[in-house]
Amino acid sequence: MASDANTCWLKVEPNSVFTVNGLGWYNQNNGSFCRLPLSREKEIAAANPSTWRLSQCPVDARIRFKTDSSQLKLRITPGNDESSRFDMWHMSSVAVSGIDLYIGAPGNQDFWLNTHPKKGSDICDHVFFEKKVCQMREFTLYLPSYTNIKALEIGLDPNAMISAPSDYKHKKPIVIYGTSITQGGCASRCSNSFIGITGRRLNSDVINLGFSGSGNGDELLAELMSQLDASVYIVDPLANMNEYMHRYEKFVNILRSRHPEIPIVLMTEIHFAYEIDDQLESAKKYGLKHKILFETYHKLKESGDKNVYVFDAGAIIKAGGDHPTVDGSHLTDAGFYAIAEKLAPLLENIIKSTGK
Amino acid sequence: MASDANTCWLKVEPNSVFTVNGLGWYNQNNGSFCRLPLSREKEIAAANPSTWRLSQCPVDARIRFKTDSSQLKLRITPGNDESSRFDMWHMSSVAVSGIDLYIGAPGNQDFWLNTHPKKGSDICDHVFFEKKVCQMREFTLYLPSYTNIKALEIGLDPNAMISAPSDYKHKKPIVIYGTSITQGGCASRCSNSFIGITGRRLNSDVINLGFSGSGNGDELLAELMSQLDASVYIVDPLANMNEYMHRYEKFVNILRSRHPEIPIVLMTEIHFAYEIDDQLESAKKYGLKHKILFETYHKLKESGDKNVYVFDAGAIIKAGGDHPTVDGSHLTDAGFYAIAEKLAPLLENIIKSTGK
Repeated sequence: MASDANTCWLKVEPNSVFTVNGLGWYNQNNGSFCRLPLSREKEIAAANPSTWRLSQCPVDARIRFKTDSSQLKLRITPGNDESSRFDMWHMSSVAVSGIDLYIGAPGNQDFWLNTHPKKGSDICDHVFFEKKVCQMREFTLYLPSYTNIKALEIGLDPNAMISAPSDYKHKKPIVIYGTSITQGGCASRCSNSFIGITGRRLNSDVINLGFSGSGNGDELLAELMSQLDASVYIVDPLANMNEYMHRYEKFVNILRSRHPEIPIVLMTEIHFAYEIDDQLESAKKYGLKHKILFETYHKLKESGDKNVYVFDAGAIIKAGGDHPTVDGSHLTDAGFYAIAEKLAPLLENIIKSTGK
Repeated sequence: MASDANTCWLKVEPNSVFTVNGLGWYNQNNGSFCRLPLSREKEIAAANPSTWRLSQCPVDARIRFKTDSSQLKLRITPGNDESSRFDMWHMSSVAVSGIDLYIGAPGNQDFWLNTHPKKGSDICDHVFFEKKVCQMREFTLYLPSYTNIKALEIGLDPNAMISAPSDYKHKKPIVIYGTSITQGGCASRCSNSFIGITGRRLNSDVINLGFSGSGNGDELLAELMSQLDASVYIVDPLANMNEYMHRYEKFVNILRSRHPEIPIVLMTEIHFAYEIDDQLESAKKYGLKHKILFETYHKLKESGDKNVYVFDAGAIIKAGGDHPTVDGSHLTDAGFYAIAEKLAPLLENIIKSTGK
């Protein structure tokens, strides 16, 4: 705890007053804002260096707390990895590096503000508000989708009350594995990945294991994913699986063998804008990949598995028309909402039916 | 006309093979990609320098043509105004500076690709495609929403057929005046301003006179707007009118006095995310502005005007919940689609009823 004249700075760390959701190995990683276990870095990086690099982007991780502080500030120590991005050609700096603030308990959250990211590796302070009436408010901060964070401190009144946030209605997280699209590319701000939106709609915790360009179905990732208890597993790597589809069934089977009871949702791939020009070739490629998806699904069903589902994202995002992507392949917020609109009720029914 | 070995470069200019829509003074401006008349620069800049600067951003301007070329390239000469932006903290470079390509006739257009903007003032070439089967295709290029373009050349096969594009179903444009939100801030790509989306839905030409931070209801802008024949006028400046509401009624009356028959739609202001925290003060401010809007509306109605309408954007974009803005005030694509979803049918009915 450090203090300025009128602000008390509290570090976000394990066993602090702040609850951190969405990072599966947060305590084991000693509070690193990393989405995979630090102890497995070598193996993960050996399988795919990008997976490791992108695991440092804490998309859909949330810091939650209640406080009656009249001020709320954030001191951000950027990740010092040189590969850490600030913005991209199709994602603004607030989309890549911003932190979104919501007010209200889960199930009743309002987006309020976000940070205005500053380029470089300097520590920077962001004032969300100050001089407000002191009253208990509940906050959720969504961490960046595509950049690294080394450390965070939250600045409150020195005498502020701080207490634990409300529980999610569904405490066990929805855990999703996938691609850049899963990771929230190209949402306009970090909390608008489709699983982030879905989590808010369902009042559920989520863990996002989307890795841009790297959702290649590595067996290792299935093993790591299966370490996480979940209300539902969602398997959404198809856009990155072109030459890796031989891994698909095994990936799913690893999850199923370790967790016979956790529902598994297999997501189809969205359609890309370029497919309008290339309909036969695209349909062939799409068909080949999805043949394997459906074979995996049917084999499980035929073996008596009552907890495996297909979610057809490709039926929602089709080629043609206005196509809700920034660049023909990465969804805009309109695309992410279209997915969440259909995914949320499916997951709600699944979670209800399993009583989790 | 300049030629590389296998590409013929054709300048986009008045009386060329290309049709340019969405720039009200295009011929008079000798083909400048400017949204206001060059001859009035001094007056416009004197009234508000930002209006002039932003008029150089050709949002919702379109270049249209049919060709059987096997290739489509674009040679972009960036605006050399130092104030011309490349990206912004809440808009990526493709959102600010990109050019979107659609294929198909109006009413049946598919988004296909966009340019990958390069920083700096160098001329740059973008290859949309090459080596395609030669067949007649119809194209629409949407020009950037928030940056300047000095010149454009389109690269086609030297022997390509080029012909005029299909007419819009509604040839007279919908003309809208407004703010940064009107200008498409913060759509993920330039063709996703709400009036751009609406134009595609209605198969109508549009002219976007949105000027970020500068929709201050200048009388001069009403005079300029009234130079443009239109199917509908939309008046959408409220977010920039805080201390200028005394201009509002006069602005509307200038349009009405010069065009007794053109329908006028008065748009209410969207609600901003911060209003959740500041409900009483926000409601008061919102109420004061809208009192003037509704007084203007009722006076016209009482005078027998049958062609004035209110479009309540504030009923669509409310404070709270996920709020479809990037930063609490500028809409995401999800927000723009929500507006277009309601605006398009209203405008369709209005245009039908006037037979334009």
